[in-house]
Amino acid sequence: MSGPGRPGRPARPARTGRRPGVSDTRERILAGARAGFGEAGFDGTTIRGIAARAGVDPALVHHYFGTKQQLFVAAMELPVDLDTAVPALLAGPPRELGYRIVRFVLELWGAPQTQPLMLGVVRSAASDPVAAGLLRRTLAEGPFAAIAKTIDRPDAELRATLVGSQLVGLAMARYIVGAEPLASAPDEVVARAVGPTIQRYLAGELADEERGIHA
Amino acid sequence: MSGPGRPGRPARPARTGRRPGVSDTRERILAGARAGFGEAGFDGTTIRGIAARAGVDPALVHHYFGTKQQLFVAAMELPVDLDTAVPALLAGPPRELGYRIVRFVLELWGAPQTQPLMLGVVRSAASDPVAAGLLRRTLAEGPFAAIAKTIDRPDAELRATLVGSQLVGLAMARYIVGAEPLASAPDEVVARAVGPTIQRYLAGELADEERGIHA
Repeated sequence: MSGPGRPGRPARPARTGRRPGVSDTRERILAGARAGFGEAGFDGTTIRGIAARAGVDPALVHHYFGTKQQLFVAAMELPVDLDTAVPALLAGPPRELGYRIVRFVLELWGAPQTQPLMLGVVRSAASDPVAAGLLRRTLAEGPFAAIAKTIDRPDAELRATLVGSQLVGLAMARYIVGAEPLASAPDEVVARAVGPTIQRYLAGELADEERGIHA
Repeated sequence: MSGPGRPGRPARPARTGRRPGVSDTRERILAGARAGFGEAGFDGTTIRGIAARAGVDPALVHHYFGTKQQLFVAAMELPVDLDTAVPALLAGPPRELGYRIVRFVLELWGAPQTQPLMLGVVRSAASDPVAAGLLRRTLAEGPFAAIAKTIDRPDAELRATLVGSQLVGLAMARYIVGAEPLASAPDEVVARAVGPTIQRYLAGELADEERGIHA
């Protein structure tokens, strides 16, 4: 578990002149990890760089979180309680479910405490297998799967991953690549444009005999 | 333009026992670059690694292509003639345009000569600004924009980037992250599921008063 830190360096805080508590130190490391992974992705981020952001010794990062991969998984956990978020999304008019899901996701992308984390997941998933696994499980078994299963339609798993494909792509185009005018369109415009896509993936016809009935 | 190669090293092929022609060498470097960028993205790929794949001296890579960023742009150019591809997509029943676009893109993703290149663009765009710029211009000014402009609807640019968001996300979910069952669904199933999304983004109502009319 010592990772790339110098061998023999003891697991203690850097001499910063104060002795932060354990939970404070853990939070500072997690915040540094979210900022680092969010800016540069998994491959472009080092334990040493995260330790510097947090103002602690790299060995302390390893001490609390183990490997860089373990730290990534801990840092990328969304501060969203799915036990309340999913029922809240399902409440309201069923035909606006797709719209509500897009609004919800856009709020997470827009909020300063969740955006770096989501940037970190998507950026890292593009090149790192561990991050890709995290995103894969989120798409296949996460909130979209939970929502798809509540709707009485076949192919819930395929529906959930189709929803995920549109929302990950929206994040790529809007927040990471910055394709205009999508990147600077108001949330409401995006939610009205993309909401019906999510709605159809969850509740509509997937195998369309006419190949374009929704034109 | 000398980049990270050793200073003073002359721009000549490695001593491989044969003297390949210029166009052969260029092609081998481009193939090595596509393979490297496709596997590891822009950040995870070095000129040295590409040179090793191509069996040439790193200085030769710099000699022919300049910086790593210039090589990336050269290597990621799709071998698709848009002057014929766009009219071919527009031919056929207008209401199946979205379906045809998805089939076309899935064929590019499935073909061995284009998949590494497209993997390279999407993987690299997630973390590298140059690659993100390439993908940004492709989404905003590339084939989707050309197609959107042929359709007599307002907001052609927004429509083009919405199309791009779904197709980039499909690539992320299906080919990079591998979210099942989407990842192993037959092309025809995916094209029928996603085609109507593309169709609506190009030709449908984007600002839906009812927020879910396509449910």
